Amino acid sequence: MQLAMIQDKIVPLDELEPVYLDRGVFFGDGVYEVIRSYNGKIFAFEEHLQRFGNSLSGIGMTGVDINEVRSRVRKAFDEAGIANAKIYFHITRGSGPRDHIGETDLKPNFFLTISELGDDTEVKTKGIAVSTHPDWRWKRCDIKSLNLLANVLARRDAAAKGCDEAILVDESGFITEGSSSAFFAIIRRTLQTTPLTANVLPSITRKFVIRAAQNVGLAVVEESLTPGQADSADELFIGVTTRDIVPVVKFDDKPIGDGRPGKYTKLLIQEFRKFTI
Amino acid sequence: MQLAMIQDKIVPLDELEPVYLDRGVFFGDGVYEVIRSYNGKIFAFEEHLQRFGNSLSGIGMTGVDINEVRSRVRKAFDEAGIANAKIYFHITRGSGPRDHIGETDLKPNFFLTISELGDDTEVKTKGIAVSTHPDWRWKRCDIKSLNLLANVLARRDAAAKGCDEAILVDESGFITEGSSSAFFAIIRRTLQTTPLTANVLPSITRKFVIRAAQNVGLAVVEESLTPGQADSADELFIGVTTRDIVPVVKFDDKPIGDGRPGKYTKLLIQEFRKFTI
Repeated sequence: MQLAMIQDKIVPLDELEPVYLDRGVFFGDGVYEVIRSYNGKIFAFEEHLQRFGNSLSGIGMTGVDINEVRSRVRKAFDEAGIANAKIYFHITRGSGPRDHIGETDLKPNFFLTISELGDDTEVKTKGIAVSTHPDWRWKRCDIKSLNLLANVLARRDAAAKGCDEAILVDESGFITEGSSSAFFAIIRRTLQTTPLTANVLPSITRKFVIRAAQNVGLAVVEESLTPGQADSADELFIGVTTRDIVPVVKFDDKPIGDGRPGKYTKLLIQEFRKFTI
Repeated sequence: MQLAMIQDKIVPLDELEPVYLDRGVFFGDGVYEVIRSYNGKIFAFEEHLQRFGNSLSGIGMTGVDINEVRSRVRKAFDEAGIANAKIYFHITRGSGPRDHIGETDLKPNFFLTISELGDDTEVKTKGIAVSTHPDWRWKRCDIKSLNLLANVLARRDAAAKGCDEAILVDESGFITEGSSSAFFAIIRRTLQTTPLTANVLPSITRKFVIRAAQNVGLAVVEESLTPGQADSADELFIGVTTRDIVPVVKFDDKPIGDGRPGKYTKLLIQEFRKFTI
């Protein structure tokens, strides 16, 4: 008899709930988004939905109705009633017997969680330490897919070193991005970050950071940095949906500037806040 | 209230079954094996368990007891009573709120399926067509991880072209392996395949194929091939646990040899059979 085993419990294969046969777990065959709200208002909702659509297309899932995704997220957000919420959702290609190609009539699986964001005052005022890790990810990081093991391993390495984020360095010796953030340097009144032509995610926070930088009069250069350029920068920070701008005060054990969040970084945090009101 | 949504159904987050919070689906944070039996006997069981242990170490999961895995697989196999079975199993780092690092007390999730293998007579006697695809996978393909989206996309591309397997080509223009198989050429009485120093999985079938080749008097060269070398080879085949040796008779639309399984490939299929009795 065909069967399955969950931990040490045997069950007939045909009695298994579909969630156990999700292509998300077999292959990471799905894409996701993380959105947040500020004071009851979802930030950059349409930008995230558009990127989600691009990710779906990127893996050849063309049948998903983005309007339905929008209304599901909206419904869940309204129901939760959390002012500062972190909204995670993914869609996988569906559930079925493990097979690389998959049946043609698979029904996509939608899954979402909404949870409360913690207070980020301390992290924003004290800054974080980061460490570098080889960028082991695949070659389609423009797709926000569920294949995140390289990110997990890099982040766990950073945590073991007492750091809050891993900054990924590709085989050419250039920084791509953080394990779950975009990476920025400020060097002589210029904001510098990896160009989107590199193997990176088109970060939505990055777009708003660049706008904030222009608003405060910084020049903006989209050019990859080496770790050596980063650790001698005037200021460093990461950009991530859940916490927008977080100052980086230590890079591979080397203090950045005077070891405290830089003045332009603080200015950008203020400027970014204006977008979120 | 913190909540989750499955398709269009809202549930409180703390009432969610752990399977929905499996790091396997959030990150592909787990490793797997596929084993088969021939006539009631599991083939190369210890080799697969050893590789599974290596994969677990590769992602920093050091607390898993391989003896327990062995006895679970054995128990399920005995219970199923399928002579020619395909046994799939994975272990993920556990279930918990989505967070790259994960709690330190996570309990690994074990999951297994056993199903009956179909008859492979036709595929072995007629051979298959393959097509090439860029190798988009991550840089740690020595780890048999659940991050398989690049493999899925390549295989779906092959299927759209009417082919049974995608042969992956890296950025240097060399073939690494198939999307779920090892790849072999026979050129002037020499078996040629990618060296394990490349970014490939240490295939167990490959080990037995090499032994079979030596037994029948073929020379063996572990050296990467280009697609141009492959499509002008005397014979081609893939090696995969579930079907051991499968002749390749067409490579990117170009017939190999006379378009039928080659004589050494057929000899190797016979020779391989001896290992499985």
